[in-house]
Amino acid sequence: MNPSALPSLSRLFDPQGIAIVGASATPGKIGAMPVSLLLQHGYGGRIVPVNPRADTIAGLPAVPGLDALDADIDLAILAVPAAHAAQALERARPGQVGAAVVFTSGFSETGAQGAAEQDRLCAIARERGIRLLGPNCLGFMNVRRNVYATFSPAPANGIVAAGGIGMVTQSGAFGAYAFSMARERGLGLSHWISTGNEADIDVADCIEWLAGDTHTRVIMAYMEGCRDGAKLRRALSAARAAGKPVVVTKIGRTQAGAQAAASHTAALAGDDAVYDALFRQYGALRARTIEEFFNLGYALDTWKHPPQGRRLGIFTISGGVGALMADDAADSGLTLPEPAADAQARLLERVPFASGRNPVDVTGQAVSEPGLLLATADDMLADSRYDALAVFLAAAGSSEALWPTFEAFARQMQARHPDVPLAISALFPPARRRELERLGCLVFPDPSAAVRTIAAVAAMASHSGRGTLQADPAPVTANRAPLRETYTEIQAMELLRDAGMPASPSTLAVDADAAVRAAGDLRGAGQDIPVVLKVVSPDITHKSDVGGVKLNVRGEDAVRRAYADIMAAVSQHRPDARVEGVLVAPMAPKGVECIAGVHCDPVFGPVVMFGLGGVFVEVLKDVSFRLAPFGRDEALDMIREIKGYALLQGARGAPPCDVDALADALATLSRFAHARAGDFSSVEINPLLALPEGQGAVALDAVVIRKGQPA
Amino acid sequence: MNPSALPSLSRLFDPQGIAIVGASATPGKIGAMPVSLLLQHGYGGRIVPVNPRADTIAGLPAVPGLDALDADIDLAILAVPAAHAAQALERARPGQVGAAVVFTSGFSETGAQGAAEQDRLCAIARERGIRLLGPNCLGFMNVRRNVYATFSPAPANGIVAAGGIGMVTQSGAFGAYAFSMARERGLGLSHWISTGNEADIDVADCIEWLAGDTHTRVIMAYMEGCRDGAKLRRALSAARAAGKPVVVTKIGRTQAGAQAAASHTAALAGDDAVYDALFRQYGALRARTIEEFFNLGYALDTWKHPPQGRRLGIFTISGGVGALMADDAADSGLTLPEPAADAQARLLERVPFASGRNPVDVTGQAVSEPGLLLATADDMLADSRYDALAVFLAAAGSSEALWPTFEAFARQMQARHPDVPLAISALFPPARRRELERLGCLVFPDPSAAVRTIAAVAAMASHSGRGTLQADPAPVTANRAPLRETYTEIQAMELLRDAGMPASPSTLAVDADAAVRAAGDLRGAGQDIPVVLKVVSPDITHKSDVGGVKLNVRGEDAVRRAYADIMAAVSQHRPDARVEGVLVAPMAPKGVECIAGVHCDPVFGPVVMFGLGGVFVEVLKDVSFRLAPFGRDEALDMIREIKGYALLQGARGAPPCDVDALADALATLSRFAHARAGDFSSVEINPLLALPEGQGAVALDAVVIRKGQPA
Repeated sequence: MNPSALPSLSRLFDPQGIAIVGASATPGKIGAMPVSLLLQHGYGGRIVPVNPRADTIAGLPAVPGLDALDADIDLAILAVPAAHAAQALERARPGQVGAAVVFTSGFSETGAQGAAEQDRLCAIARERGIRLLGPNCLGFMNVRRNVYATFSPAPANGIVAAGGIGMVTQSGAFGAYAFSMARERGLGLSHWISTGNEADIDVADCIEWLAGDTHTRVIMAYMEGCRDGAKLRRALSAARAAGKPVVVTKIGRTQAGAQAAASHTAALAGDDAVYDALFRQYGALRARTIEEFFNLGYALDTWKHPPQGRRLGIFTISGGVGALMADDAADSGLTLPEPAADAQARLLERVPFASGRNPVDVTGQAVSEPGLLLATADDMLADSRYDALAVFLAAAGSSEALWPTFEAFARQMQARHPDVPLAISALFPPARRRELERLGCLVFPDPSAAVRTIAAVAAMASHSGRGTLQADPAPVTANRAPLRETYTEIQAMELLRDAGMPASPSTLAVDADAAVRAAGDLRGAGQDIPVVLKVVSPDITHKSDVGGVKLNVRGEDAVRRAYADIMAAVSQHRPDARVEGVLVAPMAPKGVECIAGVHCDPVFGPVVMFGLGGVFVEVLKDVSFRLAPFGRDEALDMIREIKGYALLQGARGAPPCDVDALADALATLSRFAHARAGDFSSVEINPLLALPEGQGAVALDAVVIRKGQPA
Repeated sequence: MNPSALPSLSRLFDPQGIAIVGASATPGKIGAMPVSLLLQHGYGGRIVPVNPRADTIAGLPAVPGLDALDADIDLAILAVPAAHAAQALERARPGQVGAAVVFTSGFSETGAQGAAEQDRLCAIARERGIRLLGPNCLGFMNVRRNVYATFSPAPANGIVAAGGIGMVTQSGAFGAYAFSMARERGLGLSHWISTGNEADIDVADCIEWLAGDTHTRVIMAYMEGCRDGAKLRRALSAARAAGKPVVVTKIGRTQAGAQAAASHTAALAGDDAVYDALFRQYGALRARTIEEFFNLGYALDTWKHPPQGRRLGIFTISGGVGALMADDAADSGLTLPEPAADAQARLLERVPFASGRNPVDVTGQAVSEPGLLLATADDMLADSRYDALAVFLAAAGSSEALWPTFEAFARQMQARHPDVPLAISALFPPARRRELERLGCLVFPDPSAAVRTIAAVAAMASHSGRGTLQADPAPVTANRAPLRETYTEIQAMELLRDAGMPASPSTLAVDADAAVRAAGDLRGAGQDIPVVLKVVSPDITHKSDVGGVKLNVRGEDAVRRAYADIMAAVSQHRPDARVEGVLVAPMAPKGVECIAGVHCDPVFGPVVMFGLGGVFVEVLKDVSFRLAPFGRDEALDMIREIKGYALLQGARGAPPCDVDALADALATLSRFAHARAGDFSSVEINPLLALPEGQGAVALDAVVIRKGQPA
């Protein structure tokens, strides 16, 4: 979708008039539901039933076909069998119909014939300037305007309140369930959209449109896959730029899930790890379960100010549950700073056997002393040392007698500490819970859910200033000469060095004299530094195995001998190999071996991978990914994300590594990968050596595979 | 608690008469609540208010003190201030009162003076043969018998149904909350017990008593710490032997949580990793959150047959949510076998565009075709290939019109597949949900919670035949000579070899000739095997750094030269060191380096640790623990539990390791540690080399630290 296409989606999602093709008055018929819902809920625009076999339907004058309609109409709902859908749309005049929602199944999800039918439908729509939602979808709702362009039975069991959450789901069943969950949890929706087969409009289009919708403050999206990675990036970037958080559930996190997803959706799903990277990078919060999906949407919708950092204050009337919540905080990366000393003193003065540390335990006394809750919060929050507050009230929430205490607390918190998001854990009756929510306070029965939700939302803050295409770094304007057919190690290193990567200097020496000269050049300031010699041959991968490597060679004689030894060993072990010479490079200093790589995802383009060498990548699969291009902050996140990060911080008595330099190297690699996206299929730098702090990082070896070349 | 003490706890938890010391008729008073609850809910035994300032209380004749009571009484509730509690109990005749519940705070939780007061109370109780619950606790309830020996306001807001869950919690606030949660979720309780300061009776005592209680089928326990590890083991073993699953929440999983717990409870908590090991070992299910705690209790209480394995069948009316559930299954270690080919064929015949794999997607057609659910389940379950079934019905659960379909499905499932535990995910109205639960079917709004709960409960099955003290292996009847003051490497290895551990043969050579002889002895069958020589000195820890190690030494001359080199290097680098000689051992074959250790936990005694060498233990803290002693199966679990397990399975092109031999070595070590528990403070075997399959495992080096010796 290009930006100029946005208005046409507004005709779809905010229509002034709706024609229902296949409208019916017979309950249970697919064409009856939208007519009945639109009438029942008082849709204010024009409703035109389209049905050649009836003059009126549900009291509304019907027309036999779209061509019989006197005027333009924003939206046509197609509630007719697949075989008739194209035919119905064909009768529209060009420009007459803004958009169509196609409910019926029997298209691409059924196989090749259905896919052809779907293509025909799309072509007809395109010719007439009609945007298409579906087919094989449950339609959509614009809750504020009472547009129920759906045949889902979910609204028939009760509608949701109008509110700030725009919800878009690829799956109709998930969408119907999410609609019911929103109703149960009292969440207000702006729009609810199901995209089905996504013949034209996909989840990304909807996210982008919701990002521009004034009534939407939070976007909740469910997706199974995506065919246009660039569009999804644009959509997430637009939401980020508009300050609208996106909560997303994407199926297929695991191999079992991905397999199930692939058998369910024909869409090319791409690698899940890449989606994960995308969501992190664009600041979208990924939910792994429906529960988490709703907890996040709920928090972002209810809080006026989400937490701006990871410092959590906890107070409870149970020391034990406080410790349980501290466990959750630690699990989810929150910190628990102690209250100021004077605040602690005041707390203990009020409740002598309380704990004044964080978690603060005010004991059961909070129940008998109404002012204690607020006094405790005031003390804790006096000097801005918390980004959010979580309060556990145990069973006291069920007590009507205590309600005035809790209500006053929530109200005063909103008045005095409007910037500190508050979550209370207690069992309140539903109506009481809603009152607290109206005061901007989250309520969770499970204290762990309160802490984990705070943590997930707080993660957004650490990412501020990033997550939009505008914030992405400019690509490297490197030498754009076409890539070579194949790259030797030396050429690969040169290519990366030209792109600004810190790569160990290495020289190809074609004879012993050249090797001595190369070693001399490396010596530079006059020091006699040790060098490494490695055979260069397009036919030899495992150089050590054929005696093709000599380490720690020092001095002219030794270089000359090493050269001769390598040549002798290689011609003995691999007489067939083409030998181009010997690479001469300085011996690597001590550092931590990392691996950086780039591969080209079919949906999202070049993706940069980072991990530690050895068992970390090979056994533990401990790697992180980001879509190219990205800057240093994103690269730092990427480095800190791996489980073995402690090794870079100086574990086992080693000095801490130059993580900044490592991040710069990854960011540079990402800009190179972005600039040359079309040219190569993969790059691997192994090892990328992280040196001690202040000494940089350096690529010691690299493999570049050109596009189309077998890896 | 010794077994003969069990009857006295029955007097406590199932009393025929109750005296309330400090009974009151004034609402809000601590002594008013039990009187009012006992009367209100129709407790059938004798109720005797004890109050010197009233003749009757709430219509019941009162006595001035326990000594004024004519008969024996099972239970005395002490609802008087701390200062008066001992005094009140003192008035009881020896043998007159079976047990006392002490509500009031102001004892050990307030400091030294309170602790002294608590000790005095205990002594008085002990002298009179009175078992004590509390002090500083909320008391207990026997739901079936309407015994409300509590002042918690929770039952005043509504009581819970009588049922099969025995709940015991150290924290009163947690307990009150859990009681309210049980009420909200419709769980039935047998007993609810809060233990407070645990001056006499602790959580372990209650677990053991509940294990023997005929009305209790599932035990839910919350604990903050434990002072008597042996008693807790006995209690968990008793529950296991009685076939009663234990769900446990223990705070302090993380450093932050443990710190908060320590500041909350004065109890010596012990290392959390050891609790974790204990729970795994005795088959208790540890819940990390209150939500999980209840999901597990709910499942174990509702299902007649918990899953006997990890094979999950999923069917849904949404392919997308099916994939989401497959993700959850993979996360939580469940497998998803495909249905039999003929079953798949039948499924596709019925619903052509369905997915017949697992997750099976029957599409929205299940909603319009009532028999489809049962037909699908019948097909999937025809050949016993699933241990549990999870079904997702999306929003359809809210539809009253579809209720008969769902009700029939659950009923038929119970009749036809009683052994296959069933969990349905859908949004049912509460009353409908309870009907399904009565049919033995779990209902979860969140499909992920359904899958994860199945996985957690299924973990119990893989542990069958273990988890009781009876099943623990007999200790090693090793040489019980007292341990030496200090152990050199050779002596440590000898000690382990005597205990049955596979330890590399090594000999101390005091001169070059002895070294040559030792190398010759190792040669055995005549092969010239390479050996390693290492200096032996109590003063040298890092032997390589001082030139004290020679690897791969082959032949007499080389051995002689190596001996001389070591002596020269050591006397050059560490002229001060006492040198006892040189260790001669065979060069280690190729294998994976592991680490095994034992340390003595102050609460639970000797604990065995296992991990992989290098970064796994040092950087990733990737280790597992078990309490000694244990057998091979437990050791196998312990090995499989580590994240780096893949390395033992033959990652990076290496052959798979002899995991059975490794397990045997760990089990042997555990029996040794158990047998000599009082003698040493730690053992570390590093490396313990895991050789390729069929070749065993071998300890190459060990350090033994005697008890009382600085580590």
